[in-house]
Amino acid sequence: MTTARILDFINTRRPEGPCLVVDLDVVRDNFHAFRHALPDSAIYYAVKANPEPAILNLLASLGSSFDCASVAEIQMALDAGATADRISFGNTIKKERDIARAFALGVGLYAVDSHEEVEKIARAAPGAKVFCRVLTDGEGAEWPLSRKFGCVPQMAVDVLVYAHQLGLESYGVSFHVGSQMTKVDAWDSALADAKRVFASLAKQGIVLQMVNMGGGFPTKYLRDIPKAEEYGQAISNSLRKHFGNNLPKTIIEPGRGMVGNAGVIKAEVVLISRKSDNDNHRWVFLDIGKFGGLAETMDEAIRYPIRTERDGDEMEPCVLAGPTCDSADVMYEKNMYPLPLSLSIGDEVLIEGTGAYTTTYSAVAFNGFDPLKAYVI
Amino acid sequence: MTTARILDFINTRRPEGPCLVVDLDVVRDNFHAFRHALPDSAIYYAVKANPEPAILNLLASLGSSFDCASVAEIQMALDAGATADRISFGNTIKKERDIARAFALGVGLYAVDSHEEVEKIARAAPGAKVFCRVLTDGEGAEWPLSRKFGCVPQMAVDVLVYAHQLGLESYGVSFHVGSQMTKVDAWDSALADAKRVFASLAKQGIVLQMVNMGGGFPTKYLRDIPKAEEYGQAISNSLRKHFGNNLPKTIIEPGRGMVGNAGVIKAEVVLISRKSDNDNHRWVFLDIGKFGGLAETMDEAIRYPIRTERDGDEMEPCVLAGPTCDSADVMYEKNMYPLPLSLSIGDEVLIEGTGAYTTTYSAVAFNGFDPLKAYVI
Repeated sequence: MTTARILDFINTRRPEGPCLVVDLDVVRDNFHAFRHALPDSAIYYAVKANPEPAILNLLASLGSSFDCASVAEIQMALDAGATADRISFGNTIKKERDIARAFALGVGLYAVDSHEEVEKIARAAPGAKVFCRVLTDGEGAEWPLSRKFGCVPQMAVDVLVYAHQLGLESYGVSFHVGSQMTKVDAWDSALADAKRVFASLAKQGIVLQMVNMGGGFPTKYLRDIPKAEEYGQAISNSLRKHFGNNLPKTIIEPGRGMVGNAGVIKAEVVLISRKSDNDNHRWVFLDIGKFGGLAETMDEAIRYPIRTERDGDEMEPCVLAGPTCDSADVMYEKNMYPLPLSLSIGDEVLIEGTGAYTTTYSAVAFNGFDPLKAYVI
Repeated sequence: MTTARILDFINTRRPEGPCLVVDLDVVRDNFHAFRHALPDSAIYYAVKANPEPAILNLLASLGSSFDCASVAEIQMALDAGATADRISFGNTIKKERDIARAFALGVGLYAVDSHEEVEKIARAAPGAKVFCRVLTDGEGAEWPLSRKFGCVPQMAVDVLVYAHQLGLESYGVSFHVGSQMTKVDAWDSALADAKRVFASLAKQGIVLQMVNMGGGFPTKYLRDIPKAEEYGQAISNSLRKHFGNNLPKTIIEPGRGMVGNAGVIKAEVVLISRKSDNDNHRWVFLDIGKFGGLAETMDEAIRYPIRTERDGDEMEPCVLAGPTCDSADVMYEKNMYPLPLSLSIGDEVLIEGTGAYTTTYSAVAFNGFDPLKAYVI
């Protein structure tokens, strides 16, 4: 997954310290793969996955829309050339003054999952379109969603009726099957729920138009994943199964699936040691860890592929840890990581599949270390 | 724990957005309490707990020394007026070129826990003092240390002999009982280990001089904690018990204990909602969460006191979550947090005991949110 362009950049530019390098050609390919797999769905890139301006510029030029979590992300999408009608304020947790700011910037599409949020939007963005997020179970996702976002489908009906009563345009339903979802049929039961919400509202004279099918599309880490076409086919089949010929408008919000495999982190081995003479495994310490951008190793959830220059050599499982004085800064310990026995202090390693959810998670200055640098090429 | 000065600052300055306010008077009181409790120990403030320049300036003026995790922290301590002989490079995981930089800045005291690290220091900081960190079990700590730092005592002996052979000054032993340690006798078994290392090396003609007793001193969150004097008494007793009249020099490295209770985070309630009509608890969303500075709520480890203006009212347990579109950004869910039933969207809340390990853990820009601001008064 380390492209020739990335390798060339690292080898010729020799950037100092840990850094992420993102290859825009891969982002472009991913965008086309999503468009090809789901030609009838609008693509709203989840800006939070990686908001580097060069990525947003490319996607805006390709015709992408943008799913934004905050006013700052909305501003970034506008700066990249997206018009406000291609922006969704997709966070269900918004300050009323931020809704007003987004509305002033022209944004007209908002996520909700509660009566309380509907009230804020009715006051701060009168007449705007809203979609209500429905809870899904997230089973099969490697970075599972909690119950934090969404409400049960019956409550979604009430929330959308309430929005209609307050003068908003009750526009649709959203769900999220869970990030890094590797089961292609995970969208089916959520689409069945969505259809039931559509039907309940239709009985009350409210015609919903849109299903936001969220993100969840995986990127390749260590294990193989289904291709975009397989997801597209499964989702299209489920849409027809539940909505028949009366298909709603659909939106997808890829983040990890759009940029995850486009980025590689270059890091350095700072120390390799054992805890006792008869310790049967080594501790390998890198110059990046859980607080420097690899937050998704929390609970050893995401397992990144790691390449070294010694990969042909004999391997042995190691504990892999970061460089800070924080004992929680250990990435893989319960499930140790096999690395070459010949790996040495000072060696460079490439952590693949790190284009999403790394730079922005990075701590400002924990232990005095700079936040993760990014180069987009 | 919210001092009158902090309350006054928040009420008159009305800072926008979540922010940390630190009262230097409390830091000064904490410094004096440590000095009083352990008059014979040198205080090395753990800069990583909170590196705000005003805090470092105050502590430098009071005569504190500094425990630094990186070259950047060393530079900050020097900028605050500390001389290099009052600085310890306390991270056991250092790049050789960072050791060289520290040595060039005059730093002469380094932590190690492996032969490999000793070799780097011998090359990059010839003749420097080293102390070897010994593994402790961390039992009783609320933010327990893993096995990430330190080696078994027998290996520490070998490491210090090796340092001596490579021309370094084998200076002492360090340990860390675990952060937020609430058992006053936790230092005893570690001091027994330290004494054994001293004795083993003495047999080989190497006279160690210093025991670095680390940090671990707790700050008051929800539960009462023993006072500094109680820790001081217990530690003094253990020192006499194990070292008799031949007491070593000692160092302590308070971080949380120095600044934790000096800071309060002002935050705002963004949303209060339920997931269904018959949901038996509310979800309360703040404008700060796990990625905005409250990283130590990970696994619900640290439980901060939260004050609202409605604290006299009837209380009910809530799920408490942050404002990002990340489902992992939930602070208290397994062990829900009691908050007033009358709490409302837009209310201000004060999160106490947040002077340590908050601002620097904060993500650079996750979801487009600014990192946590800090005001030191």
